[in-house]
Amino acid sequence: MRIGVLTAGGDCPGLNAVIRSVVHRAVVDRGDQVIGFEDGFRGLLEGRYRELDIDSVSGILARGGTILGSSRLERNRLREACDNAEAFRQELSLDALIPIGGEGTLTAARMLSDAGIPVVGVPKTIDNDISATDRTFGFDTAVGVATEAIDRLKTTAESHQRVMVVEVMGRHAGWIALEAGMAGGAHGICVPERPFQLDDLCKMIEDRFARGKKFAVICVAEGARPAEGTMPYERGAIDAYGHERFTGIGQRMASELEKRLGTEARAMILGHIQRGGTPTAYDRVLATRFGWHAVEAAHRGEFGMMTALRGTEIVMTPLAQATMELKRVPQNRMDETEAVF
Amino acid sequence: MRIGVLTAGGDCPGLNAVIRSVVHRAVVDRGDQVIGFEDGFRGLLEGRYRELDIDSVSGILARGGTILGSSRLERNRLREACDNAEAFRQELSLDALIPIGGEGTLTAARMLSDAGIPVVGVPKTIDNDISATDRTFGFDTAVGVATEAIDRLKTTAESHQRVMVVEVMGRHAGWIALEAGMAGGAHGICVPERPFQLDDLCKMIEDRFARGKKFAVICVAEGARPAEGTMPYERGAIDAYGHERFTGIGQRMASELEKRLGTEARAMILGHIQRGGTPTAYDRVLATRFGWHAVEAAHRGEFGMMTALRGTEIVMTPLAQATMELKRVPQNRMDETEAVF
Amino acid sequence: MRIGVLTAGGDCPGLNAVIRSVVHRAVVDRGDQVIGFEDGFRGLLEGRYRELDIDSVSGILARGGTILGSSRLERNRLREACDNAEAFRQELSLDALIPIGGEGTLTAARMLSDAGIPVVGVPKTIDNDISATDRTFGFDTAVGVATEAIDRLKTTAESHQRVMVVEVMGRHAGWIALEAGMAGGAHGICVPERPFQLDDLCKMIEDRFARGKKFAVICVAEGARPAEGTMPYERGAIDAYGHERFTGIGQRMASELEKRLGTEARAMILGHIQRGGTPTAYDRVLATRFGWHAVEAAHRGEFGMMTALRGTEIVMTPLAQATMELKRVPQNRMDETEAVF
Amino acid sequence: MRIGVLTAGGDCPGLNAVIRSVVHRAVVDRGDQVIGFEDGFRGLLEGRYRELDIDSVSGILARGGTILGSSRLERNRLREACDNAEAFRQELSLDALIPIGGEGTLTAARMLSDAGIPVVGVPKTIDNDISATDRTFGFDTAVGVATEAIDRLKTTAESHQRVMVVEVMGRHAGWIALEAGMAGGAHGICVPERPFQLDDLCKMIEDRFARGKKFAVICVAEGARPAEGTMPYERGAIDAYGHERFTGIGQRMASELEKRLGTEARAMILGHIQRGGTPTAYDRVLATRFGWHAVEAAHRGEFGMMTALRGTEIVMTPLAQATMELKRVPQNRMDETEAVF
Repeated sequence: MRIGVLTAGGDCPGLNAVIRSVVHRAVVDRGDQVIGFEDGFRGLLEGRYRELDIDSVSGILARGGTILGSSRLERNRLREACDNAEAFRQELSLDALIPIGGEGTLTAARMLSDAGIPVVGVPKTIDNDISATDRTFGFDTAVGVATEAIDRLKTTAESHQRVMVVEVMGRHAGWIALEAGMAGGAHGICVPERPFQLDDLCKMIEDRFARGKKFAVICVAEGARPAEGTMPYERGAIDAYGHERFTGIGQRMASELEKRLGTEARAMILGHIQRGGTPTAYDRVLATRFGWHAVEAAHRGEFGMMTALRGTEIVMTPLAQATMELKRVPQNRMDETEAVF
Repeated sequence: MRIGVLTAGGDCPGLNAVIRSVVHRAVVDRGDQVIGFEDGFRGLLEGRYRELDIDSVSGILARGGTILGSSRLERNRLREACDNAEAFRQELSLDALIPIGGEGTLTAARMLSDAGIPVVGVPKTIDNDISATDRTFGFDTAVGVATEAIDRLKTTAESHQRVMVVEVMGRHAGWIALEAGMAGGAHGICVPERPFQLDDLCKMIEDRFARGKKFAVICVAEGARPAEGTMPYERGAIDAYGHERFTGIGQRMASELEKRLGTEARAMILGHIQRGGTPTAYDRVLATRFGWHAVEAAHRGEFGMMTALRGTEIVMTPLAQATMELKRVPQNRMDETEAVF
Repeated sequence: MRIGVLTAGGDCPGLNAVIRSVVHRAVVDRGDQVIGFEDGFRGLLEGRYRELDIDSVSGILARGGTILGSSRLERNRLREACDNAEAFRQELSLDALIPIGGEGTLTAARMLSDAGIPVVGVPKTIDNDISATDRTFGFDTAVGVATEAIDRLKTTAESHQRVMVVEVMGRHAGWIALEAGMAGGAHGICVPERPFQLDDLCKMIEDRFARGKKFAVICVAEGARPAEGTMPYERGAIDAYGHERFTGIGQRMASELEKRLGTEARAMILGHIQRGGTPTAYDRVLATRFGWHAVEAAHRGEFGMMTALRGTEIVMTPLAQATMELKRVPQNRMDETEAVF
Repeated sequence: MRIGVLTAGGDCPGLNAVIRSVVHRAVVDRGDQVIGFEDGFRGLLEGRYRELDIDSVSGILARGGTILGSSRLERNRLREACDNAEAFRQELSLDALIPIGGEGTLTAARMLSDAGIPVVGVPKTIDNDISATDRTFGFDTAVGVATEAIDRLKTTAESHQRVMVVEVMGRHAGWIALEAGMAGGAHGICVPERPFQLDDLCKMIEDRFARGKKFAVICVAEGARPAEGTMPYERGAIDAYGHERFTGIGQRMASELEKRLGTEARAMILGHIQRGGTPTAYDRVLATRFGWHAVEAAHRGEFGMMTALRGTEIVMTPLAQATMELKRVPQNRMDETEAVF
């Protein structure tokens, strides 16, 4: 069998572990040939790839980033490719394609699949917001990094009698904020799924100060927004990459808390350190299992599917289902902690 | 409501997180009173306890060990207590008892429950071998510590052209060996569930050396044993605490590999560093959720049950079911890696 | 002997290790009495203190922050105190005072010393910028945190073909930027001691991209400033606490690099995670030795001095000397790497 | 200039950082050619080497091990080489040789230097026992690993009311035991420099238990030995590699303590995890500086010397001096803690 593999979208700890696992299972155990496309779908479209043997994936299990490179998806070019998918597949003699990526990548994977390319997807997102899988690799590492930051900020917040606002990743889903906030013992947690009540947040902090606990740490997802009327808020300037710049919610909240409480408040924007570097053991295991099962699915001819974690098992689930809707933090998870505002 | 909490059995990262969570949910949110028994069931039997308020659990979320202390179970004394359970419960005015512990503790919890004490158990085991829950807290931390050790040993094994055998915890179940072995990229993994074939292990190492990879790392669970006839093996002396001493499987395997392969081989026994110290974020979240749900179950009057993780949800499951049989590594998990021998 | 100890100024990993060491040496070995003033000099001036025995410092060696609390110095109040120093000393029956703090604290310590209070100082600064000591505790931890961040950002910068600017602490001295930059393998390092040449920085990045290395990481001290004419620069708004807000050098540099290079560039402001949390082993040892030697100096009657590291030895050095001038990165240290711009 | 570099002896975090730094300084800044000999002196003697350019050292700064490989020294073969040193040097057109290694390597380096090879040594030892340099790289990493182990063992010792003996590296010098013991807050520290008094150790532990602190952690260097008459002791069997096996001092001490105190005591042998894996920031900086200065010394024609840290500066010191005598823990360092027995 000849299997192509590619990584697309943002960095995510565990990408290399998936690639390594695909090669180990396919080349070593199954006698397949594996080729790796460079820079995501771009390498696929431009026919840029290299063969991956066992030595080419030596020592990458614990390494962040992706040895194959990544790139943003250009949908128009991809659509063209879909129109010539069969010719394309034959030219590369691909028996299976394993794209590793997030929601956009999996949507593209589905397009390719619909166009006749034999695709087995591997879901990837720091944010843990892909439906149909209990968890995605990279998430545990991100939560770990954010938790360590909260641990460190707590002692300094306490020493300085300060409010610290930690802004973590999560534009549409608050999983990192929720779990890092719980793991770090943040006093407040704000997620995109529930517009936060700044008044309640202020009251909680005032109560703490009144009880002699003269510090607080708030963990806020970048996508969290104030409930209407509780805090002045307008979207900041949007840069060329589609992000609000300089004026993230963390910084705004700190300014507002300082103003209201008369207490020093500072923001810490964790940013990209959440998505780079060595993956945790959890993420390495999950990524390795995903790679193994993707190869097996290819051999069974289960295409148009992606790997998913359900409980303790890896199962195959239709790509369509995975990209249907975002997995957001449900009400019952927010109820499990008194810290969500 | 008046809730008693105790920790029993061996150390496990996350114990304090459960205690803290019980207090937060019960005292702060529910207005309950929480008392903590000292040194496990011993404190319960001897009436040694202290009240736990919010300040008494401040700053313990990330701390290893248990602020309540622990002790080994004395079954006879416990049986006596069961005979006077009702008197006992009334004396302490206990509305609910939340014992946190492993298989022995949960069995004891069931005895108490059968005797009429309103019990909600919280499962705890480094080894992840309790049925009825997908995972237990402490396990992720142990796997993380073992993985970091393997990461470090790999570079030194490579520099010294050596075989390194890492012995990890797991008397009856090989979960830590399996997951740390996969996460660390160990070349061989040996678990109690499958007697290992030393010949195959030797052949794999020889193949590596022949390919120019002049080192190997083997991750072996303390309870792993050779398949009959593949390696001389007799049980070592059993000490007062019931353990084989000086001559664990790691050391024996290293000696045997050195003899057979003519290559330097060393054993590293990870031991107790796997079960102490700061829990990972994953374990803190799981422990916190267990504590929260235990309190809720008590309020709903769901006694004779314990908390369990199923997929992404915390559910309640009968204590009876939890202690029925050990959760061992199943065949399909071993098949997911070529490294299990 | 009756010894007072206090911590003043910003948080710094190792403060608790000094306090613990003072108590161990003084109380356990020497039979002294130790009192700890709360919230820095404020506790001294207001007579708020508690006795510190061996149990009160149990378990704090590895903990960030300070169990005594800290506060900003109010010079006027301190001057008043100096006028009544002798009465003051007698009231508290202090035989020695050990203030642990940075430049401001040591200057205050000198005032107290000149006024007749028997003072032995312990220098503390994350920034490592106190003359007369080779190193200060806290610095190694800060460099470690910053290095780990650079390690993580490198893989994500590479995956995203981006320039990442990491802003680290160091208003007046670039020690953290220099050492974290070297340890993390940053491609550019900017320190307050040398106005940076943005043109040269751009050229280096362009050369990298031309060579196929399509990413770069720049480590910049918060106090670094562009050489005149190389980059538009004006000081930002100064907030109530004397800091420029929203518009640190990291963010400005990233914007400017993005504009000039046409490449995506992002800033990461490390901020307070550098100064909180568990100290490294190095910092714990240094802090412990400082505490030990401070007590010994008090017993020898060497007042008006502070502890200092010289090579491998702890020596006593006059407070006057310590605060005379800032220790800045010298030319020869910058010459040791081609990365300083 | 044509510069050869090699790594010899045991693994040590920071070796790759030296190699990288030599290449960066020599190739990039100085326009030199650098060749790396494979497997230490063996590669030198057998003419096995490869050219090292900037890409060949990319990404190795934080990686443990050595990309050049290492080997044990065969003195006889080296002596032969010395007899033909000049021919040898000319054949390879070597203008300078930079061997990176421990005491044995530096002695060999001196032989080569005496025979006319232009040598600049770089000292390397986990144990920190080379005279003439304040510190060696690798030591800080080893102390860090050992300290983290002690941190973890403390909580589990406390929970189990146990004595834990941690055996760390250090055959002839107790630096790791001393610093990790101080950093981890070990209650007892045993070093080769001072035969330990087991009676005193027992008394300290008994006192702790009497005070209600029912656990203790002892940090013991592998080369520590009991003072005559305080504990039965005879050397264990010596294996083919010259080490006592199965019966290290840690295990013996734990057995003896258990017998005398009637308390459960366990040994943990840290072993090779101390010398592998990612170096700390401190070690990366020191290794990088050593590499840089070695190249500079070669350009200045300062041969027969090695790099050394003195205070904050890197200086050159004669190889002869470096290997004259081992740097052992002096009395005044042992006096700085009450924990050395």
